[in-house]
Amino acid sequence: MTADYPTALGASSRETITLLGHDLARDVMGSVGFGELAFWLATQRRPEPGEVRVFEAVLAALADHGFTPTAIVTRLTYLSAPDSVQGALAAGLLGGGSRFLGVTEDTGRFLDDVLARLEGDAPVDDAGWDALALTTVQAQRAAGRFVPGLGHHVHKDGDPRTARLMQIAREEGHFGPHLALFGAIGRVHSQVLGKTLPLNGAGVCGAALADLGLPLPLLRGFALLARTAGLIGQLAEELRTPVGNEIFLSVDRHNRSVAPVPWEAS
Amino acid sequence: MTADYPTALGASSRETITLLGHDLARDVMGSVGFGELAFWLATQRRPEPGEVRVFEAVLAALADHGFTPTAIVTRLTYLSAPDSVQGALAAGLLGGGSRFLGVTEDTGRFLDDVLARLEGDAPVDDAGWDALALTTVQAQRAAGRFVPGLGHHVHKDGDPRTARLMQIAREEGHFGPHLALFGAIGRVHSQVLGKTLPLNGAGVCGAALADLGLPLPLLRGFALLARTAGLIGQLAEELRTPVGNEIFLSVDRHNRSVAPVPWEAS
Amino acid sequence: MTADYPTALGASSRETITLLGHDLARDVMGSVGFGELAFWLATQRRPEPGEVRVFEAVLAALADHGFTPTAIVTRLTYLSAPDSVQGALAAGLLGGGSRFLGVTEDTGRFLDDVLARLEGDAPVDDAGWDALALTTVQAQRAAGRFVPGLGHHVHKDGDPRTARLMQIAREEGHFGPHLALFGAIGRVHSQVLGKTLPLNGAGVCGAALADLGLPLPLLRGFALLARTAGLIGQLAEELRTPVGNEIFLSVDRHNRSVAPVPWEAS
Amino acid sequence: MTADYPTALGASSRETITLLGHDLARDVMGSVGFGELAFWLATQRRPEPGEVRVFEAVLAALADHGFTPTAIVTRLTYLSAPDSVQGALAAGLLGGGSRFLGVTEDTGRFLDDVLARLEGDAPVDDAGWDALALTTVQAQRAAGRFVPGLGHHVHKDGDPRTARLMQIAREEGHFGPHLALFGAIGRVHSQVLGKTLPLNGAGVCGAALADLGLPLPLLRGFALLARTAGLIGQLAEELRTPVGNEIFLSVDRHNRSVAPVPWEAS
Repeated sequence: MTADYPTALGASSRETITLLGHDLARDVMGSVGFGELAFWLATQRRPEPGEVRVFEAVLAALADHGFTPTAIVTRLTYLSAPDSVQGALAAGLLGGGSRFLGVTEDTGRFLDDVLARLEGDAPVDDAGWDALALTTVQAQRAAGRFVPGLGHHVHKDGDPRTARLMQIAREEGHFGPHLALFGAIGRVHSQVLGKTLPLNGAGVCGAALADLGLPLPLLRGFALLARTAGLIGQLAEELRTPVGNEIFLSVDRHNRSVAPVPWEAS
Repeated sequence: MTADYPTALGASSRETITLLGHDLARDVMGSVGFGELAFWLATQRRPEPGEVRVFEAVLAALADHGFTPTAIVTRLTYLSAPDSVQGALAAGLLGGGSRFLGVTEDTGRFLDDVLARLEGDAPVDDAGWDALALTTVQAQRAAGRFVPGLGHHVHKDGDPRTARLMQIAREEGHFGPHLALFGAIGRVHSQVLGKTLPLNGAGVCGAALADLGLPLPLLRGFALLARTAGLIGQLAEELRTPVGNEIFLSVDRHNRSVAPVPWEAS
Repeated sequence: MTADYPTALGASSRETITLLGHDLARDVMGSVGFGELAFWLATQRRPEPGEVRVFEAVLAALADHGFTPTAIVTRLTYLSAPDSVQGALAAGLLGGGSRFLGVTEDTGRFLDDVLARLEGDAPVDDAGWDALALTTVQAQRAAGRFVPGLGHHVHKDGDPRTARLMQIAREEGHFGPHLALFGAIGRVHSQVLGKTLPLNGAGVCGAALADLGLPLPLLRGFALLARTAGLIGQLAEELRTPVGNEIFLSVDRHNRSVAPVPWEAS
Repeated sequence: MTADYPTALGASSRETITLLGHDLARDVMGSVGFGELAFWLATQRRPEPGEVRVFEAVLAALADHGFTPTAIVTRLTYLSAPDSVQGALAAGLLGGGSRFLGVTEDTGRFLDDVLARLEGDAPVDDAGWDALALTTVQAQRAAGRFVPGLGHHVHKDGDPRTARLMQIAREEGHFGPHLALFGAIGRVHSQVLGKTLPLNGAGVCGAALADLGLPLPLLRGFALLARTAGLIGQLAEELRTPVGNEIFLSVDRHNRSVAPVPWEAS
């Protein structure tokens, strides 16, 4: 007996193509926006408009941040291999790991873990969320761990995306427990840490995605989807205003040859 | 003097983040859909709603086609390296080369080349387009080259995406010369080739993207953006209904060991 | 002041090229084998011949294992994008993560951690190593963690690479504490686990690389280097005896369309 | 009937592992060097020592050239995603396309095409090769095409790798027609082009690999194999003397925000 491979995603016969159980040409093309479709593909349920608006706000928040390492990598790879747009995009996405894009996923998972361990009902007011946030931050500090989503190297007085995304989520009725806990962490952490740090944009995006019920193991994937659009923008700009070669030369020109130093095992 | 690196994409200061010259939090998040944003990032001009509808129809057409090589690759890479979602997505995108996703770009470029070489004005009616299409197909045949976008291994009687995308483009007033020429090729090619082939979905997408004025050297990039959403869907399904290991075993179990055969240089 | 970027690797002037402080053309090309060079590049010290022999035995052990997920991925990516050999190789390497190639690195790090925490001198005889191995396996079991490098899904009675690599390391005088501890784990683990598992090849490779003093954070990198040679072999075979399309079709033909199931957040 | 998948590469049973028809543990590990093994995997024939020496000289020539775009990309990707060594290596390799590493393959294929079109026997002396080289360079110039492998932006008076590799190939009896034609191009091109350009190292490597009978469609793959070793060296240096963050900041600090300029379709 040979296995078969079930899928609810794309399928086609001689006459029709279906996607998620719908006729692609008749019912999806022309009717379903791209953000909506990405949400639908990931969850196999069609989001309602309010969910789409929050989701697309997250994608906008994460699409491009200028000359990040991922943007530089995509431009340099295109410089080296202009025959392969897919290689330039893939190389840029490979920087979407733990340090940069990972904050979105780390924050969503962290908040979800706290909520999953809650005994009894979730808090019903700010005071309740603040109490939960306080014990959460205290526990992290006691364990010597950072609170994901807290702090930003540029927006030290507040990341403008954070308040805006919370507002949009409220407007659409999708300000759920992850955002509530994240907001409370923003209010109380200074009592524990002795200083006030901003709730960063990557973190609030993770909280919002978790409140939308998107798959936690793939939160990083949505940051990568957003970034794919941003990297195409970087390539389009590189075509007209190339800087890749100048970046390469700026490094190469400041190369300083030094003597080898043998690696010493620890 | 050190070079500087101009960009109109993302920029940030302590208080604000701008994207394409707009305040990201205030003017983009919550107001700009993801397809619209991707278009805007690639062209540095904000599309109007009709353009967005055509563009998003293209992205829907290309997002997922079931168990394509790219989908299989993403699932197998996730099986091997579940710690790296970015690696699984990047690996899948690397299959977006000349054979599969490349048709979109090849078709857009091909049609654009024909139009760029036109002496005099573009045709104004179907008869005019048919005449141009006829000489175009004849020239390709004489040169021993295929016409990109013609033919499909499954949808032999017509790819349902083609008529639908043309309809949407017409509804929105974006049925331009690339789609007109592509449609005419569909009407006349059998006179030259002696058989009727369908205009395929990847090809019509390339024609539509070209009519929208998107950067031709990056048409493949839009197919990759669509596919990124599809591959996230594949991963989300793999999390719940894994088939990667079964695919691997189905190959491994049918492995047949043969004797080496020395490579002979031509 | 502009930073400069120190490097002891490649450098060039109008007349000469140096690598690791040596004249590339005169002193490296024609004199230094490729395994030796890879070792030298990673550690910035030239290995002596015995080290090279052990190192190259490790690379041989890890180069190719037939139709692994990485091999399948490389073949399918080449099928989709034959214009980009670099994409096909990169896609295959992206499967070199925690589950498959990661064992080499995990084992090397695990053994090194145990040795680093040793109080007093390392054991001097088998009895001493057995005692250390016993407490090590007991501690892992108590913590509910696996011992890396132990067990194999095919070579249940012993992985032939393990004894051979230990023999080569002994012949060359590079059977150090990591291999000694790994060997002892092989002898004693059944006392704790109640069953006898083989020491696998990936694990013994990690132990040997650690004994050679190679950088622990990059042990996975050497497995990837070995695999790059294997994947080139896979591509060369695919050119002559293609199976990629058949693998794709075998999956596609057994595709079974099912109804979408909405994702439920935990 | 289910297809099976033939391979002469790795295979394993419960007791043994074979590679290229040989017992891996007994006959390959400890006996076969890594360069030799890579050659063998690619061609399915075991090279003799002289071939290995030429092949490894090529790999040494291509392994690392300091802060190339591929090296910068690997370092930046590791900065962003330190959890994924495979991602950092893969990203670097994706720069191995037409512009940089591609010269090796382009030169090998170009020379081979000329030789394949030869009517009658190949030249037997320098005068004969010079005559063939002259018509070859003239034909390229007439067609408005470059001669691959000719010219270097740094080594304007001669690339030191070129003479050295030719010498090694002669010593080992593997100075074949590709190298002979390439050498002749070096002697005669100034008669056609009116200036003297160096034969570059990437080009001579392609000629040498072609003379060794390695698969022409994969010549780029050998450059990528060499570069994998180089990129591991880059990562090992980055671990100890990190420059990735400084490179990122040097770009980010010189970011200049400009107004968007709408893309104009051609």
